[in-house]
Amino acid sequence: MAQLLSSSCSLTISSRNKPYLKPLNQCSTPFSVMVGCNNSRSPLRRLSLRDQKPRKSFSAVHAAAVSTSQDTPVQTSSGDPFKAKRVMVFGGDGYCGWATALHLSNKGYEVAIVDNLVRRLFDHQLGLDSLTPISSIQNRLHRWKALTGKSIELYIGDICDFEFLAETFKSYEPDAVVHFAEQRSAPYSMIDRSRAVYTQQNNVIGTLNVLFAIKEYREQCHLVKLGTMGEYGTPNIDIEEGYITITHNGRTDTLPYPKQASSFYHLSKVHDSHNIAFTCKAWGIRATDLNQGVVYGVITDETAMHEELYNRFDYDAIFGTALNRFCVQAAVGHPLTVYGKGGQTRGFLDIRDTVRCVELAIANPANPGEFRVFNQFTEQFKVSELANLVTKAGEKLGLDVKTMSVPNPRVELEEHYYNCKNTKLIDLGLKPHFLSDSLLDSLLNFTVQYKDRVDTKQIMPGVSWRKVGVKTKTVPA
Amino acid sequence: MAQLLSSSCSLTISSRNKPYLKPLNQCSTPFSVMVGCNNSRSPLRRLSLRDQKPRKSFSAVHAAAVSTSQDTPVQTSSGDPFKAKRVMVFGGDGYCGWATALHLSNKGYEVAIVDNLVRRLFDHQLGLDSLTPISSIQNRLHRWKALTGKSIELYIGDICDFEFLAETFKSYEPDAVVHFAEQRSAPYSMIDRSRAVYTQQNNVIGTLNVLFAIKEYREQCHLVKLGTMGEYGTPNIDIEEGYITITHNGRTDTLPYPKQASSFYHLSKVHDSHNIAFTCKAWGIRATDLNQGVVYGVITDETAMHEELYNRFDYDAIFGTALNRFCVQAAVGHPLTVYGKGGQTRGFLDIRDTVRCVELAIANPANPGEFRVFNQFTEQFKVSELANLVTKAGEKLGLDVKTMSVPNPRVELEEHYYNCKNTKLIDLGLKPHFLSDSLLDSLLNFTVQYKDRVDTKQIMPGVSWRKVGVKTKTVPA
Repeated sequence: MAQLLSSSCSLTISSRNKPYLKPLNQCSTPFSVMVGCNNSRSPLRRLSLRDQKPRKSFSAVHAAAVSTSQDTPVQTSSGDPFKAKRVMVFGGDGYCGWATALHLSNKGYEVAIVDNLVRRLFDHQLGLDSLTPISSIQNRLHRWKALTGKSIELYIGDICDFEFLAETFKSYEPDAVVHFAEQRSAPYSMIDRSRAVYTQQNNVIGTLNVLFAIKEYREQCHLVKLGTMGEYGTPNIDIEEGYITITHNGRTDTLPYPKQASSFYHLSKVHDSHNIAFTCKAWGIRATDLNQGVVYGVITDETAMHEELYNRFDYDAIFGTALNRFCVQAAVGHPLTVYGKGGQTRGFLDIRDTVRCVELAIANPANPGEFRVFNQFTEQFKVSELANLVTKAGEKLGLDVKTMSVPNPRVELEEHYYNCKNTKLIDLGLKPHFLSDSLLDSLLNFTVQYKDRVDTKQIMPGVSWRKVGVKTKTVPA
Repeated sequence: MAQLLSSSCSLTISSRNKPYLKPLNQCSTPFSVMVGCNNSRSPLRRLSLRDQKPRKSFSAVHAAAVSTSQDTPVQTSSGDPFKAKRVMVFGGDGYCGWATALHLSNKGYEVAIVDNLVRRLFDHQLGLDSLTPISSIQNRLHRWKALTGKSIELYIGDICDFEFLAETFKSYEPDAVVHFAEQRSAPYSMIDRSRAVYTQQNNVIGTLNVLFAIKEYREQCHLVKLGTMGEYGTPNIDIEEGYITITHNGRTDTLPYPKQASSFYHLSKVHDSHNIAFTCKAWGIRATDLNQGVVYGVITDETAMHEELYNRFDYDAIFGTALNRFCVQAAVGHPLTVYGKGGQTRGFLDIRDTVRCVELAIANPANPGEFRVFNQFTEQFKVSELANLVTKAGEKLGLDVKTMSVPNPRVELEEHYYNCKNTKLIDLGLKPHFLSDSLLDSLLNFTVQYKDRVDTKQIMPGVSWRKVGVKTKTVPA
């Protein structure tokens, strides 16, 4: 049984299985956390960092005191100022999750992070590391509390373990859950059979568990689920936000937009979307599926406040996203690695917009029974266009940036039509941070600052969509 | 390690987990079969019932000798008579699987059955039983061999156990696999959280494993996968076969038909379809997805040959399909249970067409890289129309048949548009057995013959789509 961490409790982490070597007949949580709390009568106690205080004691003034954002407070669609809400961020130790948890805390939400920290384990197993040095989740939360007076509660455990998940729901009683707690790398899901299976099992079953927990314990709770623009693939028609109205043989209906995912990871998100849509209809769950594009950037108002709050920044071929990786490559003099022709077009967004989009979704919840889909990106780029932008920005900084085309490890169209709608979050008030010269300059400067930490062996793609096999890979590719 | 059963081997079945009580951190096969074969040098030996003979020694005369079908032998699309092929039937001990395995064996294919027999365990756990007494799989295969001289090989194990699956592929070297080995009941998947999770985990991971096994060991092997018409839901436009051509904002593309499944079971099939489609594109897998309607009937040419070959016939509210259940109800004087308004329209087919459709798909394989979808049903009916047909047929036999409307345990439209295409299998040569008075008469006579075996407590629906919860149900509903 995994339990809430308390800093006064002794902690034992029992790693029963190595996820990458997990046999098919073991889908257990990679971690279970055993906490011996002699002074605890309840099986779950909140993180002792946080003073016991009434749940609705938030002060807008307090929240504003640590906000350095130019954003105005989110207004709900009804025009009322937002009220304090209790939000659980699943996967709150990850790249998007950590930034989101801090942002929501800063904006006056009560926040709890639920994470099994397996993303950190993947780094150990694959020999990877964040460009930025990142603190432990415990130190992150201590620092946040010291700087802002705000507590973020912490539940360490695996949402695929329903006993753990149920206890977190009953203990925290969230009004909204933001669900980032999935294996989120397409290449990781294509390393070998066991990682493919792990990805789908972890993501699909974790989300099923969250849906059951909401139904059973918090039926009004709003599920804000991270999907991906990759669910749609690259159709030859415009991509709408979740649904498309089709007239066929003289009849018309509005149906889920057809899905054409291109990795076992992307497919897991497709499966999630279908499962969530069903539970909205059958059980009246309220859910928002955020089909997010490729995220870039590292700094948000909150993570910039202290080194111990810094976000992770992945540049490797497994977890690194395209623009982040290009900036690191430019900083260390490695050619930018454009896969194939580079005509692959995708939606992109700044991580500062990720956190704002989640905030907007929470402040304007879906109705009971509504399965709402937002396409969460702000601009479209071809990969080759990104390479050109980084090249030009690098030249301004005196960097000699070259680009190389590498054989595409993926199976995807390298030249295609791509036109996606993304108006729903704008309509709710999103003011995008577009990719400008200044942002690229700062990103490049940032990567130059940490270039001594770059492991150039991790840059070239080592995972092939076509060559993935059943043999478990036990050493780095 | 599960191994091929040999009748000369001692058998130990180790039931490590009760599927219905399986903790989330255990997704193991419910069974593992340990065989101690002293005389075996290979870890896998074929069923000793079968004489060792060359693989391509089939005689069309021999096959025809036991065929009582009016069907002509299947011709391939190229016009050549079919050649002997090695087919593995996953789930070959189940309702559709058993009939299919015998049919293919009768038609001259070399056949192996792969099954963990968990369907029989579900009956024990839920207190259910087939209307027809069914023999053990071992006795079934002995009888088939005795009657026809044909051997069907038997591999007992779970395809979610990749070690087992890999050995079956390497041992048997199939040219085609027919994949029925999934939890196939919508109500079962809605009993409780653990059954929902079991259904999706079992079905999705099993199919992923089959895809990896084909890629690794038999890349030319044709996957014939059982899907369901329920993947489409009930859209307000015509349902095409797998794909739909959409013109949108002046552009046109042919995309996967949108999916709107309405149970965790149906959703698992949607997930499978997306996974298979991806592997066809990425790896060149050749696959046929048979989106099957509701199957009725009990007798095929082969199962009718001997009592020990009889197929199972489910009438209960968990595994029974509508028409079969209505016939049993009529036989025992129980009112026909029409859910809600009864305007739910579905596609139906005779089990004799199920086996023929699979044969047609195998004889006309998909091309490498092709993901082909056939809608496998022959007629559409409203549930209330079926009730009326059974009522009239019952009256002819002197039965007093009443109908009752019961509150709909499902979440589904009870009056809706429904028009599905089903021409692809007809184009390949399917000659449907339509539901006629004579078929209904024989089905009713059959159920009357076995009416003393009916447990009327199993007839009324006990599983609610809306009330499903997280508490594991340990006693019959």
